[in-house]
Amino acid sequence: MKAVFSNYIDQLQNKITSDIEKLDRNLEFRKDSWERKLGGGGLTMVIENGNIFEKGCVNVSKVHGTLPKAMSEVLAVTESEFFACGISMVFHPKNPMAPTFHANLRYFELYKENAKIDSWFGGGLDLTPCYIFEEDISSFHKSCKIVCDKFNKSYYLKFKKKCDEYFWNSHRNEARGVGGLFFDYCRGKSNKEINHWLSFVKELGNNFMDPYLKIIKKRTKMNYTNENINWQHLRRGRYVEFNLLHDKGTLFGLKTQGRIESILMSLPPTVRWNYNYIPKKGSSEEKLVKILKSPRNWIK
Amino acid sequence: MKAVFSNYIDQLQNKITSDIEKLDRNLEFRKDSWERKLGGGGLTMVIENGNIFEKGCVNVSKVHGTLPKAMSEVLAVTESEFFACGISMVFHPKNPMAPTFHANLRYFELYKENAKIDSWFGGGLDLTPCYIFEEDISSFHKSCKIVCDKFNKSYYLKFKKKCDEYFWNSHRNEARGVGGLFFDYCRGKSNKEINHWLSFVKELGNNFMDPYLKIIKKRTKMNYTNENINWQHLRRGRYVEFNLLHDKGTLFGLKTQGRIESILMSLPPTVRWNYNYIPKKGSSEEKLVKILKSPRNWIK
Repeated sequence: MKAVFSNYIDQLQNKITSDIEKLDRNLEFRKDSWERKLGGGGLTMVIENGNIFEKGCVNVSKVHGTLPKAMSEVLAVTESEFFACGISMVFHPKNPMAPTFHANLRYFELYKENAKIDSWFGGGLDLTPCYIFEEDISSFHKSCKIVCDKFNKSYYLKFKKKCDEYFWNSHRNEARGVGGLFFDYCRGKSNKEINHWLSFVKELGNNFMDPYLKIIKKRTKMNYTNENINWQHLRRGRYVEFNLLHDKGTLFGLKTQGRIESILMSLPPTVRWNYNYIPKKGSSEEKLVKILKSPRNWIK
Repeated sequence: MKAVFSNYIDQLQNKITSDIEKLDRNLEFRKDSWERKLGGGGLTMVIENGNIFEKGCVNVSKVHGTLPKAMSEVLAVTESEFFACGISMVFHPKNPMAPTFHANLRYFELYKENAKIDSWFGGGLDLTPCYIFEEDISSFHKSCKIVCDKFNKSYYLKFKKKCDEYFWNSHRNEARGVGGLFFDYCRGKSNKEINHWLSFVKELGNNFMDPYLKIIKKRTKMNYTNENINWQHLRRGRYVEFNLLHDKGTLFGLKTQGRIESILMSLPPTVRWNYNYIPKKGSSEEKLVKILKSPRNWIK
């Protein structure tokens, strides 16, 4: 399973970065391969200052060793050996009408005295717009549902709800974005079960970029003003707040001496904090804020 | 003591904001008074887009009630009533040659069955430059030492060390800035002792703005390039990282349902995250990074 999923995420990283390079011409991903002192390493691929993407990153990491204390506490296990691998990505488009996108797929194995005692998949994806285009959000959620429904009719609503709960900026009492899917500890006690989850994450991985890039192609052509950019930078501030205050992946990475630049690659390129900025009544900016206050159902 | 310190910080807020208004003409602080649902309130004063200061905030808060759980755990006390008041400020200059400045002074009382069981002062101040001017940093530290020495010859080194330890961006293995003073739990068991600390924080409060504004007046006249601005925005990213990942005041405020905009007013206005930006060898930017890696003694 380690080898299968590990190969899959390498291929997916290749596929996604070359698709982005085709779309955002004159851009080439910068590749940084890195090693983890305590075991394993990864490959971080980044673009900056593209015509379409102001910043985009796709990171693959494959790490192993003794479970860091911070993690063994979360998992409520005594000291164990672990293996973890995953792919994670964030795209921050230049055009404020185009949404930011995040996705990650991960696999975890836990050992005791060289025997595997547990293993699971996790992952998720979500969309963070600055301006609301309802048809974009609906089509994004529909494509999530299509993948989920192939495996179990209950998955979409279950993982959509988890996503709304997870990407919640509790200190602001608002969602980071308009959601998507989030799932964790998808365990397999039997080979059949764990293969079910492998198929699920692969199906997701094979199908999440196209719906996002369709939105990008449409929105990236739109005109925008300095005011729209200002709003984009303010909203990116909320993205930073979520990632540094609440995101478990980020905080876990920092606590376990992960590679800082690969952990914080998710942060937006240009960001702004104004004091107590309140959008005008009836504006598109206010519409976004209202929607983020109470996550809704995007499929009718 | 509550009334005395409470009046003092009101006056100090008035004095500092009017001094800044005189310096940065055409600017007027926006005043927001706010209430805390669970008891107390405050006055937040903010300037944005000045000629000298891109953003500046001075906040006074006076809160009381039942000690929030997060705080009683930190203090290792069972449920108690508390009173806390303080002044805190951050100034982010426009010119990248001029340093960011932060200061706060605070007083805390703890009660059990209506009787005061503990009380203490805390506070600190620190300087965060993007470019190193050694004479500025030395004069800033000297003015800190002059105040400290009036009270106890051991205070400067003790509180300077605490400041270096506190404003440490551990995930980056570098200091947030070039330090200053930091002190906490300065208790007084007798009236004489608590009055000693009151005099100390007042003497600090009366004397920290002049040295900072002297630096501002000098550096704000200097020329700068877009590259300097870029570096300033990147360094401000580290400021955000510290405040959201490590600053106890910020995290405490967020956990105890403080007023979000008054807590996050400290965040810089325009910020940037580039992937793995490394300054050129021998550049002024590299000089800063080297200095932040190992806090030094600024008074020879």
